Amino acid sequence: MADRAALEDLVRLQGERVRGLKQQKASTEQIEEEVAKLLKLRAQLGPDEGKQKFVLKTPKETLTGKYGEDSKLIYDLKDQGGELLSLRYDLTVPFARYLAMNKLTNIKRYHIAKVYRRDNPAMTRGRYREFYQCDFDIAGQFDPMIPDAECLKIMCEILSSLQLGDFLVKVNDRRILDGMFAICGVPDSKFRTICSSVDKLDKVSWEEVKNEMVGEKGLAPEVADCIGDYVQQHGGVSLVEQLLQDPKLSQNKQALEGLGDLKLLFEYLTLFGIADKISFDLSLARGLDYYTGVIYEAVLLQSPAQAGEEPVGVGSVAAGGRYDGLVGMFDPKGRKVPCVGLSIGVERIFSIVEQRLETLEEKVRTTETQVLVASAQKKLLEERLKLVSELWDAGIKAELLYKKNPKLLNQLQYCEEAGIPLVAIIGEQELKDGVIKLRSVASREEVDIRREDLVEEIKRRTSQPLCLC
Amino acid sequence: MADRAALEDLVRLQGERVRGLKQQKASTEQIEEEVAKLLKLRAQLGPDEGKQKFVLKTPKETLTGKYGEDSKLIYDLKDQGGELLSLRYDLTVPFARYLAMNKLTNIKRYHIAKVYRRDNPAMTRGRYREFYQCDFDIAGQFDPMIPDAECLKIMCEILSSLQLGDFLVKVNDRRILDGMFAICGVPDSKFRTICSSVDKLDKVSWEEVKNEMVGEKGLAPEVADCIGDYVQQHGGVSLVEQLLQDPKLSQNKQALEGLGDLKLLFEYLTLFGIADKISFDLSLARGLDYYTGVIYEAVLLQSPAQAGEEPVGVGSVAAGGRYDGLVGMFDPKGRKVPCVGLSIGVERIFSIVEQRLETLEEKVRTTETQVLVASAQKKLLEERLKLVSELWDAGIKAELLYKKNPKLLNQLQYCEEAGIPLVAIIGEQELKDGVIKLRSVASREEVDIRREDLVEEIKRRTSQPLCLC
Repeated sequence: MADRAALEDLVRLQGERVRGLKQQKASTEQIEEEVAKLLKLRAQLGPDEGKQKFVLKTPKETLTGKYGEDSKLIYDLKDQGGELLSLRYDLTVPFARYLAMNKLTNIKRYHIAKVYRRDNPAMTRGRYREFYQCDFDIAGQFDPMIPDAECLKIMCEILSSLQLGDFLVKVNDRRILDGMFAICGVPDSKFRTICSSVDKLDKVSWEEVKNEMVGEKGLAPEVADCIGDYVQQHGGVSLVEQLLQDPKLSQNKQALEGLGDLKLLFEYLTLFGIADKISFDLSLARGLDYYTGVIYEAVLLQSPAQAGEEPVGVGSVAAGGRYDGLVGMFDPKGRKVPCVGLSIGVERIFSIVEQRLETLEEKVRTTETQVLVASAQKKLLEERLKLVSELWDAGIKAELLYKKNPKLLNQLQYCEEAGIPLVAIIGEQELKDGVIKLRSVASREEVDIRREDLVEEIKRRTSQPLCLC
Repeated sequence: MADRAALEDLVRLQGERVRGLKQQKASTEQIEEEVAKLLKLRAQLGPDEGKQKFVLKTPKETLTGKYGEDSKLIYDLKDQGGELLSLRYDLTVPFARYLAMNKLTNIKRYHIAKVYRRDNPAMTRGRYREFYQCDFDIAGQFDPMIPDAECLKIMCEILSSLQLGDFLVKVNDRRILDGMFAICGVPDSKFRTICSSVDKLDKVSWEEVKNEMVGEKGLAPEVADCIGDYVQQHGGVSLVEQLLQDPKLSQNKQALEGLGDLKLLFEYLTLFGIADKISFDLSLARGLDYYTGVIYEAVLLQSPAQAGEEPVGVGSVAAGGRYDGLVGMFDPKGRKVPCVGLSIGVERIFSIVEQRLETLEEKVRTTETQVLVASAQKKLLEERLKLVSELWDAGIKAELLYKKNPKLLNQLQYCEEAGIPLVAIIGEQELKDGVIKLRSVASREEVDIRREDLVEEIKRRTSQPLCLC
């Protein structure tokens, strides 16, 4: 649905005359340049004609000013007409734009689609420039932390059911981070860049992060140390309660709000039975600008421990948070729609699953075919076609070899290779007797089944739910 | 899977050094220009280092020279680096490229993904510039017409199960068209452009098409009349047999092969029980260059006839054909992999379904939620969270309102609006008694169910398969 909106943008942009310029909030030089160009273009086109049906929105404007330092990874394109375009960086910003444009104040949806980042790819770790994201979001004005808890529940459900091994969801809150920066004496203008430094703590040591803060970003050493005292802490709800008593932090309104919400969140997560998967981690910062409240990130604690397996370093496999201001950035009147959501890193998870299957030497079936329609003699193509069609019409997943006169051995071999469990064999004798020989590929047992009972028998034998892998 | 290949292309193109230039078959000026640019770029980069791991392929080269007159609709883009890129026009060419690059000689797959065309959009008829295609293809060297018949069977199955009303699949063969052009005296160089004229016969009269052939494309009137005698014919297998006896057409080798295959195809389609849906139509031409054999196109015979409904003109809703030469165009040694496939026009079909539902004033459920967890009194949020979590864990599709103390009436109203069939109501008395009140939204009947039996009872009541619409 966000796609439809993105499409309509493209169409408006390219198929229609420039009729007006949307009010904009973003304020980079780039945007100003574009606006100048577009105004020039508009002047060339002459005065507006007819009704004001279409509003021009530059796709690039949609994306800029939302991602912080990550903005450099936005994939820009120029189309034939020379207009500036970008490929979407995530599904969150397009979702927010969709809500604003359609004046939706209330929706819960998932969306699986591709996004693009001009990043350094690392194939083996599932890092690509074009990749799928799977997002789930809840938008609307609700009572605190109920949708947030549902997002974390869904994240845990997904990761558990994929059997990726043990995982942990780190949780923090932007308001706690901002409050902590304020009480430690970080100047307002440096909040975001210091946030980026903190975000590196899952990869490098505190010493290195401190050096960056002091050396590169100009923080006083004692300010950095104050941050260090906080961000090196992590724990459960008891850490939340401890910080609620922290003499400095509890004086900060923002931090207090964040801590209060986290306490409530832990209550709900306990009711959802997932509190043991959650770690309140003050070093979790998340790079993106648009988060306003709770943020979270799921990390695998180890690669699934199988003998001889190399650990796959895939980093975080799911992440998200609350972004209450993003929809308002797209609404002409700035009307806010609070949102909370999560993204699943599909490719990263695939890397892990694929590597696990490789290690286990598990064979992966690439089809769900239940039965191969085969023949024991020549000249039975017509009979095979008739039977396979009967099975298809009955909802059975059936195949046949696309050969006029395939050898029985080749047909059986195909089943072995493709993992097809059953073979329905037609022979001249069987045709006379009104039966079909049903063979189990695994046990090699064969029984004659009356043709009218074949569908039921195949359904009975293949009724076990298929394994996901 | 074709996406992964497309991605790898982008990555190679942009993330790696230029290491070589792929042999190319396309020969437009554009391509030559690009090659010159790339050679220049390569020279700037200096001599190759290390192993020849990556082969550069220009994405634009992949798309040019495959679509005939439709090529003007390819959506071109320029990226930041100035390389020429295009968005994919369909899923067929990327599929063929994928087969060639991975040296696959044998595969059957479906693929649902977006394609892009710089065409005039018509929203109400489901024509967009960015839209989904749903493709099914069978690649490999097989006995004639068996995979082709399966493609047509699948097309009919899909269209029947979507209940779009009556439809017809027009079938023809490129070899019959080419043979017909040859015996009528069309110069070889004009085959493709005359093919495009013939393709318009579903929209305009023969007189207009003839005028185009003679006036614009310079055919002699008697040549056009000869074509006219053929292309105005359509029918079943009897027309195939009649043309096999046609004194002129039967002398043409290509036409004879095409007619022979169509005869066989009709035999198989009869065995598949769909021959009555198929019309051999000599005016069916299909615009794309890559087809080499049988071609087909499904059209709805009428809009689903409901009183007061405006007919939706959506044109063809599915189409496809055989393309035996396309994979070879991407293989350095020109190795061919015969392919046949079909595309479903998802958006066009959505237009029809949406309009039908609107006419019928049928309410469309946007969720599959089976039960809402509600409370009859205040202060039961915790109990609601606990119960909804239990239901989720048992695989039940459950929801709750994200409010601390919602009114029962509001909760019931939400179910009416969202089409949720059941409400699980928690009250203080029920908690004491260890039961949950299960209410049917439609009948308003309420029964107390023991909590441990709730999951089974909900499953029992919602076990009817969901309607697709």
